[in-house]
Amino acid sequence: MSEEDEIEILSEPPPPRLEAQTLAVARDGSVQERGRALAAEVPVSITYNGLAHAVMMASPLDIDDFVVGFSLTEQIIESPDEIEEIIVRPITLGLLAQAMIPTHRQKALMENRRNLVGQTGCGICGIVELEQAVRRFGPIKARPQISGPAIFKAMDALYPMQTLNRDTGAVHAAAFATPDGEILAVREDVGRHNALDKLIGHLARNRIPADQGFCVMTSRISFELVQKCLAAGIPALAGISAPTGLAVRLSAEHRLTLVALARSDTFQVFSDPHGLFPRPNATPPAASTPEPALPGA
Amino acid sequence: MSEEDEIEILSEPPPPRLEAQTLAVARDGSVQERGRALAAEVPVSITYNGLAHAVMMASPLDIDDFVVGFSLTEQIIESPDEIEEIIVRPITLGLLAQAMIPTHRQKALMENRRNLVGQTGCGICGIVELEQAVRRFGPIKARPQISGPAIFKAMDALYPMQTLNRDTGAVHAAAFATPDGEILAVREDVGRHNALDKLIGHLARNRIPADQGFCVMTSRISFELVQKCLAAGIPALAGISAPTGLAVRLSAEHRLTLVALARSDTFQVFSDPHGLFPRPNATPPAASTPEPALPGA
Repeated sequence: MSEEDEIEILSEPPPPRLEAQTLAVARDGSVQERGRALAAEVPVSITYNGLAHAVMMASPLDIDDFVVGFSLTEQIIESPDEIEEIIVRPITLGLLAQAMIPTHRQKALMENRRNLVGQTGCGICGIVELEQAVRRFGPIKARPQISGPAIFKAMDALYPMQTLNRDTGAVHAAAFATPDGEILAVREDVGRHNALDKLIGHLARNRIPADQGFCVMTSRISFELVQKCLAAGIPALAGISAPTGLAVRLSAEHRLTLVALARSDTFQVFSDPHGLFPRPNATPPAASTPEPALPGA
Repeated sequence: MSEEDEIEILSEPPPPRLEAQTLAVARDGSVQERGRALAAEVPVSITYNGLAHAVMMASPLDIDDFVVGFSLTEQIIESPDEIEEIIVRPITLGLLAQAMIPTHRQKALMENRRNLVGQTGCGICGIVELEQAVRRFGPIKARPQISGPAIFKAMDALYPMQTLNRDTGAVHAAAFATPDGEILAVREDVGRHNALDKLIGHLARNRIPADQGFCVMTSRISFELVQKCLAAGIPALAGISAPTGLAVRLSAEHRLTLVALARSDTFQVFSDPHGLFPRPNATPPAASTPEPALPGA
């Protein structure tokens, strides 16, 4: 399709929540009609300076935040100011998000894409892609501002703020909390990576310093979530579910504080390079006296 | 990197599960050291005839199944026989999965990729990508072989079969069940889409007819899972969590039977174009007598 007049641009954006009629079937075979809210999932095509870049399946909410956050964490831009304009157009197929970026960023992006595709067979091709999949970032230097009480406070506050998830049970949330656990912002999406990109875009657009607090995710912690935090300068991440092995390794290597399995009564610390959560019976850093041997140890 | 001798090929594949030491911090501030199994997540670079195609983050398990399933659901091949060879090599960065496919498939793939990248700015670029994101498939014609008792039986059987998830709590499972709910195969992965690709690859490689039963997913049902079932000819899908709006719409449009929120006592039917789950008080298809009005209706 290349003629503008073939495209139907809609006047209304797609709703983030839809209603469905379902049948609830019980184990005894009884059947009831039910209503159920569904989370919308729409293809969002992101273009830079008119050139298609990627299609992401996303919740049609906070798309401006999404484009800014995605552009930052994909390292297409370095500062939110580099997005000169975003136009989001609802069309019958989904959403078109058209971003304008500086010419030198556009050139770098095109160069990158050409390199990805232009490779010729070398017998071991795929290594380059593997290297690019796990990107390198500078380590977190400042002491992360996170604590046990703040994590419990943020977790307690988060659930009622997940307005789309409360109805649909099908979306993840990414939240940013102050050092004492007050939640400053929540973004929701059918994809956890999108939710975090939206949050990061929101922080950047509102000049909220990403190192003055911590991020909370309602999902499992994949290595890509850790990468996005590193790209955004978020020094600490707390997740409700389990992390993957690579997420833990990447956190430790980059000195990111990673807490997961955060439940109402307990959380687990997977990466604590800044020593924020002392081990039981740990020798305090200043003391040099060896610990007495435990009976039976 | 382009010299074969720079790459360290490992003799052992990466383990699918890792051990981590964690600190469990309770709300009262008490701290305990814990051991915790983690699901490994490794980059898998898939190459076709020596050309890099995609890097997927996956659990390092059943990679042969994964490559065949991915190649089928991405419509790179039409039959598992078209994968002439798969070599999976563990290297320090992850896994290299090198597949050999017929020359005409390779040409079609390259043509496709060139088209995706070669677009020039037309002001509305991104529409083409949007159209490609939601692919079209032929509708499911045969009556799906799924029933209430079979769904409950399969769900009951599935949990003990999720061996990696039992330890790690961090991976999804895709399973294939016979019409009476016996589970024939389970595949696990940190990504739900990968788990389904692995299952589809397993079915294809073992000539298990995909229309003689139904698929069970432990995750939320995104539209991509429905697409993969359609690509593989699986006529019915049952999920433990909620579906998205697009997953429901795509199922209905393609006459795929979609059941979700499958719990121990109940499940909900979101798409039932073959009329497998009659509504309460529904007029039987043969009868033409109108239903008597309900009191108060």
